[in-house]
Amino acid sequence: MSRFWSDTTRRISPYIPGEQPQDKEYIKLNTNENPYPPSPRVFDAINRALSNLRRYPDPEGMRLREVIASYHNLEVQQVFVSNGSDELLAFAFMAFFMPDRPVIYPDITYTFYEVYASLFKIRNTLIPLNEDFSIDIKPYCTNGAGVIIANPNAPTGITLNLKEIETILASNPDNVVIIDEAYIDFGGETSYGFINKFPNLLVVQTLSKSRSLAGLRVGFAMGSQELIEGLCRIKNSVNSYPLDRLALEGAIAAIEDDQYFQETRQRIINTREHIKPSLREMGFEVLDSKANFLFISHNALHAGTLFRELKDAGVLTRHFQRPRIENFLRVTIGTEDEMRAFLSLTKDIIKKQHKSLDKKIHLI
Amino acid sequence: MSRFWSDTTRRISPYIPGEQPQDKEYIKLNTNENPYPPSPRVFDAINRALSNLRRYPDPEGMRLREVIASYHNLEVQQVFVSNGSDELLAFAFMAFFMPDRPVIYPDITYTFYEVYASLFKIRNTLIPLNEDFSIDIKPYCTNGAGVIIANPNAPTGITLNLKEIETILASNPDNVVIIDEAYIDFGGETSYGFINKFPNLLVVQTLSKSRSLAGLRVGFAMGSQELIEGLCRIKNSVNSYPLDRLALEGAIAAIEDDQYFQETRQRIINTREHIKPSLREMGFEVLDSKANFLFISHNALHAGTLFRELKDAGVLTRHFQRPRIENFLRVTIGTEDEMRAFLSLTKDIIKKQHKSLDKKIHLI
Repeated sequence: MSRFWSDTTRRISPYIPGEQPQDKEYIKLNTNENPYPPSPRVFDAINRALSNLRRYPDPEGMRLREVIASYHNLEVQQVFVSNGSDELLAFAFMAFFMPDRPVIYPDITYTFYEVYASLFKIRNTLIPLNEDFSIDIKPYCTNGAGVIIANPNAPTGITLNLKEIETILASNPDNVVIIDEAYIDFGGETSYGFINKFPNLLVVQTLSKSRSLAGLRVGFAMGSQELIEGLCRIKNSVNSYPLDRLALEGAIAAIEDDQYFQETRQRIINTREHIKPSLREMGFEVLDSKANFLFISHNALHAGTLFRELKDAGVLTRHFQRPRIENFLRVTIGTEDEMRAFLSLTKDIIKKQHKSLDKKIHLI
Repeated sequence: MSRFWSDTTRRISPYIPGEQPQDKEYIKLNTNENPYPPSPRVFDAINRALSNLRRYPDPEGMRLREVIASYHNLEVQQVFVSNGSDELLAFAFMAFFMPDRPVIYPDITYTFYEVYASLFKIRNTLIPLNEDFSIDIKPYCTNGAGVIIANPNAPTGITLNLKEIETILASNPDNVVIIDEAYIDFGGETSYGFINKFPNLLVVQTLSKSRSLAGLRVGFAMGSQELIEGLCRIKNSVNSYPLDRLALEGAIAAIEDDQYFQETRQRIINTREHIKPSLREMGFEVLDSKANFLFISHNALHAGTLFRELKDAGVLTRHFQRPRIENFLRVTIGTEDEMRAFLSLTKDIIKKQHKSLDKKIHLI
């Protein structure tokens, strides 16, 4: 704490991203990165953009917005681009929510929402997920507050279907509803088709996961022209040029190479579905994730123990020490090889625990 | 205006960056970009970083912070990095100023300060520059408010010396003093040497100008550990990863190639000093700029007219339609060739105006 800090700086509890340890080479299943590299076209595009680095990029990122608009059959004024989708969500909280227009979201979801609400002093209400971690949409249909829902939800991976999203949108004519689709390309149903029907819908996506570009920082939003204009106003009051020339060109190439995108995302979906039964056989509850991660809980081995044992063995996963989910582990879907290694190590750890348990029982 | 916009979104007047027209090739002297490309080492570094784009960058940018710290003989905890210095200034306004700890700055300066104050609802007082556009430091020495001063100031290019900066720092023990050194490498005296003496000092710099990397978006701040920690708290509440992998590596290479940096900045200083007398001969008042631009006003030709005539002739400059400076033009220092073209076109425009004026006088 410093006497120079503003009230805001004192009040906030910053977000803590997943660890990126440098001490050794890990099988990294902790931050939902894509196990496959980005499209080869990305590298060519970035190389071409190198010649003009001394010049400012286009502050509005128009060419990237056009490519995203055309891909989704929208107008360019319905698309906003940003330096990763986290920045975009921060802008959206500033642009559309406020103390007297509060925001609601699930008690278990992306923890950054809590951070934004605190940073911008926005009143927020957390709606408990059902016992099975699914979302009951009723509390979101009161037209009493803005809504932000991750679909698929994180870290559960569970989705809402389009009928449910439509019900939320239709019952909130006076509030912005943000659907955070960071993980949508791994099996959920995207809601951007509702944009022309519901001016209160903002769909947020990212190139970090399904386009393998976590290292390039590109997110985008799709919504009515008035919502996009609101985001532009905030962005132009914080940073005129949030996307550098290389990120803009790399992102365009990644969106344009649709075949590569379809192939790699399908591979990840296949791997995910392939390991679900193996995990269940080993005694895990496996939530029905449609994301590039699984959220799992073992019937005998505590998630905290498994997390530490896996880390010691060179596999990083993510363990959230929070109510309701402290006995779950979030495991990113890696390559087939990585997941085989993860399964085999996990099997060993469980066996070892059983043995030590048997020994204890024997001693009694 | 949209009914979905928050009070903030309605209230703000976003910043308008210099134009980047696409209609034809201009001699671009309007956004203070460097006329020389970045160090060749930047390209190698970016190419090496391409192999890992699927992975998140280091959220804290530690290696870049270490390189900047080592270059300035500081600790890594005294350095903060960001996606351009505009983002950094936005974070600093949030981190250190607030309604009951207001901020003061000159009436003529970087117009983004006004935008930040409005965005974050910070009370601000504008202190008029002296008649000759120099800064009278007395009003900044009251210990009554935070201070932000661009040094050199923009768009005048006029500097404060270290003695004056030290006086401001010493007389503000309870307030953060931000010295925005975006243009410092072109002849001003940097104030980072005061960091260990004054915990209230934040020095902000950018790689956009003197390191030719406007297109890569990298800014940094140097200050006491408590100020840097405050900035980190805000950054980690907005966007965990503001700098992408390519920007981090490119920036490291640019800082490390000090010889290239020294050569190119000296070339720009030489060009600037070289054209000052020619402009004065042509009837211009030329402020004593220590930046990579000149701020000039002609004794017979209005700046607005010259701006338009130059634009028609293919040369972009910047004209601010604001009180006290509407008869000035800000002209970025380009290559020797570009400045020769600018001088010759300007001479022609003035001659043409004189002729049409002579004709009018003759007719009377």
